Amino acid sequence: MLERIPKGVTAPAGFQAAGVACGIKSSGLDLALVVSTPPARSAGIFTTNLAAAAPVTVTREHLRRSDATTAAVVVNSGCANACTGERGMADARDMAVATADAVGCPIEQVLVSSTGVIGAYLDRGKVRQGIRLATEALSPGGHAEAAEAIMTTDPWPKDAAVRAVAPAGRFHVGGIAKGAGMIEPNMATMLAFLTTDAAVEPLLLQRALREAAETTFNAITVDGEPSTNDMVLALANGCSGVGIDDVSYPAFVEALHAVCHELALAIVKGGEGATRLISVGVTGAHSVAEAGKAARAIANSPLVKTAVHGGDPNWGRIVAVAGRAGVRFDLGRARVAIGGVELFRGEEIFSDREPAAAAHLRTSEVAITADLGTGGAGAATVWTCDFSAEYIRINADYRT
Amino acid sequence: MLERIPKGVTAPAGFQAAGVACGIKSSGLDLALVVSTPPARSAGIFTTNLAAAAPVTVTREHLRRSDATTAAVVVNSGCANACTGERGMADARDMAVATADAVGCPIEQVLVSSTGVIGAYLDRGKVRQGIRLATEALSPGGHAEAAEAIMTTDPWPKDAAVRAVAPAGRFHVGGIAKGAGMIEPNMATMLAFLTTDAAVEPLLLQRALREAAETTFNAITVDGEPSTNDMVLALANGCSGVGIDDVSYPAFVEALHAVCHELALAIVKGGEGATRLISVGVTGAHSVAEAGKAARAIANSPLVKTAVHGGDPNWGRIVAVAGRAGVRFDLGRARVAIGGVELFRGEEIFSDREPAAAAHLRTSEVAITADLGTGGAGAATVWTCDFSAEYIRINADYRT
Repeated sequence: MLERIPKGVTAPAGFQAAGVACGIKSSGLDLALVVSTPPARSAGIFTTNLAAAAPVTVTREHLRRSDATTAAVVVNSGCANACTGERGMADARDMAVATADAVGCPIEQVLVSSTGVIGAYLDRGKVRQGIRLATEALSPGGHAEAAEAIMTTDPWPKDAAVRAVAPAGRFHVGGIAKGAGMIEPNMATMLAFLTTDAAVEPLLLQRALREAAETTFNAITVDGEPSTNDMVLALANGCSGVGIDDVSYPAFVEALHAVCHELALAIVKGGEGATRLISVGVTGAHSVAEAGKAARAIANSPLVKTAVHGGDPNWGRIVAVAGRAGVRFDLGRARVAIGGVELFRGEEIFSDREPAAAAHLRTSEVAITADLGTGGAGAATVWTCDFSAEYIRINADYRT
Repeated sequence: MLERIPKGVTAPAGFQAAGVACGIKSSGLDLALVVSTPPARSAGIFTTNLAAAAPVTVTREHLRRSDATTAAVVVNSGCANACTGERGMADARDMAVATADAVGCPIEQVLVSSTGVIGAYLDRGKVRQGIRLATEALSPGGHAEAAEAIMTTDPWPKDAAVRAVAPAGRFHVGGIAKGAGMIEPNMATMLAFLTTDAAVEPLLLQRALREAAETTFNAITVDGEPSTNDMVLALANGCSGVGIDDVSYPAFVEALHAVCHELALAIVKGGEGATRLISVGVTGAHSVAEAGKAARAIANSPLVKTAVHGGDPNWGRIVAVAGRAGVRFDLGRARVAIGGVELFRGEEIFSDREPAAAAHLRTSEVAITADLGTGGAGAATVWTCDFSAEYIRINADYRT
């Protein structure tokens, strides 16, 4: 039993947040702070990009050194602090030191995160000023400013929260996220910060986070580009008095998954230039892994994404992508439907149904389904958005 | 010693060509015919897409059944005859039968090829009418019409030819090609038809074609989409009296490579919405294969292609793609240059040089070079084009 509630990352008890402007970006909020009292058990998932940014490296270190206990998460937007070498590492550490000083905790209990332009140095003075302002502004109602402060090209802030019931009682899960471009998680960076007042041991929290992320953050793509800075963190401070054990684990994962799902879809809907949310469901694959690979190939195809943008039920492009996805595929038994309208089945082409599929493409949430025809039970869903001229404009002009 | 000459696919002796309009497209030339007298030795490279179109299947069969001897190549644009099942196979065979009747050769000496919309049936009546008209129009000067008749969204026709000297004497190599979208060869389809009046045995011709294609047609990408219909054919009719043996093989490959290189780059320059030709050179990779994989990842990155379009020397995106390309990569020793202007070297960022790199990005031929920093000798170059709002427009509206 899940109940959607307001207040995002500060919905769970014991969490405060703030978002402030300190001049890293030319305008708008650009530094967020989330603090847990008491310090929370924590877990993280990070970019697989070999050019991982300094804050990713520092946060990994701190999670290890603190035995996965975290008092504060500090995040800046406007500068990714990526490809910045030793100077960038020192800047990321300085951001943690300043936060530790401000909130009164050991440095390794601070996790740092950055998003924005790659290859620019962080301005320590501005960051320190932002941390001072954010510490003063901390409040149990600061979720909205925090969600806004982590945005780059995002069109709107993203937060979500639920109230859940475990055998031992009620607990809450909340979160904020940012997305926009360079979204194919492993990296214009996907960030998500999740909080809960359940008490969860770090290894169990890590397992739950991986499980929830697998079909949410790891199943979305805007442009097939994993970022240098991608990071998903989960903090569990136990303030609800509800402990998560093997019996209550499913209820906890369900709640965590619900928040991750809502944030992940919000990231896709707010993708650069996006006008439609597209779900790509693949069935009839030899395995779940092959279904996921085919779904991701279709979801990342510029030809499919532009066809959806243009309202054209061009199922041939979907078949063509499935055929080159590097997975087992039987053209003679393959099927493709748009909005539940089957347009192609092995030998048959249903051209007369295209107007119905085209009508579906004019709605804001588009469903593409493809059966690979292998007779296998492998199935997977990936979410993406359409590809518009606005994406080009945003990315051609991003730094100028 | 190569000399560029005019007349494209009909530059070598013994070849005639024609391009005619038969109404498959709503306007313009849409059927091309290339005929060799006498029949030529032939070789082919085909899409790796598992949804390969009917003409691909038929042409493969005919190459085998005729012992790689070919009298005619017939190509239509406007309809890919892909995903069309048994009816599509019968239509492709009918196209070969009609051509065999018209030029007077066995059916297996006819190779067929199609490009255009996937999932539509060929109109046999129009195709037969086109074959009649093209046969009447055949001439040693028909190269330009043939090049035009194979176009879909291509902005201009592409042909090339050279005169070359082997120990045994002079010979010629010519060709026509089409490209535009769905270009990442293995498929809005890349087609190329090459002719030579050298005498080359089929196995040697196949080897030469593979070798020439490796660093030309297989080293270009417009949008990372291999088509259902990609096909490169080479015909060698021996009319020059020059036989190609082990001694003259290098001269032959050089000539074939020169024509393939010119056609491949013309395809990229004419990519959908393209305004700039981009070469992506990768060095310092662990192997040639890893260099190629990284170069292709950079060349296919929408973030890199939009940055080039916007004239933004955003080297951080290049590093980010190299880091997620799935190859060995050492960030601390990696280097990136745009137009020969080094912008990033391991720990160092040369922001002051960005105006020079930005000036280079305003030219029509952009050079990106990236060293992966592994110390390995692996190197490769891939050619691509920038990504403009025009690409979106073309692909959102393609069928409407």
